[in-house]
Amino acid sequence: MANPTAAMLVIGDEILSGRTRDSNMHHLAQELTRHGIVLKEARMVADDTAAIVAAVNALRAAHDHVFTSGGIGPTHDDITADAIAAAFGVAIGVRDDARAILAAHYATTGTELNEARLRMARIPDGAALIDNPVSKAPGFSLGNVHVMAGVPNIFQAMVASVLPTLTGGDPLLSQSLRVMRGEGEIAKPLGELAAEFPDLSFGSYPFVRDGVYGTNLVIRGTDAARLDQAMARLTAAVAPA
Amino acid sequence: MANPTAAMLVIGDEILSGRTRDSNMHHLAQELTRHGIVLKEARMVADDTAAIVAAVNALRAAHDHVFTSGGIGPTHDDITADAIAAAFGVAIGVRDDARAILAAHYATTGTELNEARLRMARIPDGAALIDNPVSKAPGFSLGNVHVMAGVPNIFQAMVASVLPTLTGGDPLLSQSLRVMRGEGEIAKPLGELAAEFPDLSFGSYPFVRDGVYGTNLVIRGTDAARLDQAMARLTAAVAPA
Repeated sequence: MANPTAAMLVIGDEILSGRTRDSNMHHLAQELTRHGIVLKEARMVADDTAAIVAAVNALRAAHDHVFTSGGIGPTHDDITADAIAAAFGVAIGVRDDARAILAAHYATTGTELNEARLRMARIPDGAALIDNPVSKAPGFSLGNVHVMAGVPNIFQAMVASVLPTLTGGDPLLSQSLRVMRGEGEIAKPLGELAAEFPDLSFGSYPFVRDGVYGTNLVIRGTDAARLDQAMARLTAAVAPA
Repeated sequence: MANPTAAMLVIGDEILSGRTRDSNMHHLAQELTRHGIVLKEARMVADDTAAIVAAVNALRAAHDHVFTSGGIGPTHDDITADAIAAAFGVAIGVRDDARAILAAHYATTGTELNEARLRMARIPDGAALIDNPVSKAPGFSLGNVHVMAGVPNIFQAMVASVLPTLTGGDPLLSQSLRVMRGEGEIAKPLGELAAEFPDLSFGSYPFVRDGVYGTNLVIRGTDAARLDQAMARLTAAVAPA
């Protein structure tokens, strides 16, 4: 069976201005690979309703799952929940169960559940809440779109809440070989092996260390025996003992 | 005058599998901000011709400039140059000036310019070469699309070659204020100021340190005096002395 596919949408001006370096995409990529879901595409857009709506609608039509990060806090630039509602054409408002979670949380910390904080209980109609064990304000899943916070430790906690509920595929396995030869020397045998093992993917990642060219070769697939077979052939071809 | 806009396209299976963490987008974002070009969107796609073609055509129609990284090396998975040619509907082949650059480079290192390495001289018709002072194999600009290597130090060198040739806008300035208060407490005055200064953008980035909530507030714009004015008001509102 083919593995399910996914896309990620990173939302936030701070990523595109270069102020913040996104780390959520890399985290999600690793978790999905472990879970047997293939991340096919990622997009990063600004805090702009039209851009978010267009991206969400393109991605949810093309992939089994879409994961978003960012824009679900209490400030004026947190527009993700409203944009998701607009993308799906559903209503949005403060929902009782989300409000109860926030009220309980702020009661224990002696903080006022003011109008700004109440924005975090705005949930599009038909969505299911995603648990946030860190700071309580929930994410949500609507259809195949999973909406999560941008703060990395909260994002990671929400991914851990959502992933076990999704059907994965066979875990995506990989084997690596590091050779101190430039890509240009091994491209031919590598290309021939890639053609011979069409069920596997062969990647080639060059590097330079102390002026010497090297290449990391990576074979990926879901069948461990095929990976072993291909890696033995690759090693014999480019790094004979 | 409005600042020019740009998009970035990161190409490579290794980013989406979580094997490698992309650093080129963050570098480009910072360089563009300094140069007065607004990065509006970034996309990451796999080594897949159809995905690259679709992304390039969508992005080049929507923005003044598109910058790509990855997929221009000598191996079978380096398909970016051919995909760009396909996106523009132009022919591609080994070009004499690009071949001469490679031949001169490999002659000095005593390395054979074999068939795989010659692939790096394949340039779409009508493109201008981008200088690569690190490892010589050139990038290229075709129309408003600038095609660069994925290896970070080479990507950075190519960005340094290309950026001075592009017309920028007023540099995008920013001022930051760090307050040890949660977003929920400052959301109201922040939103009011954002409405009052529509020519500036106000961002709010929460963090937690040792269990205490804090927020980094960032105001962005191109007019230094307006930034000063807004920051004075913001400071008085959320962090009075």
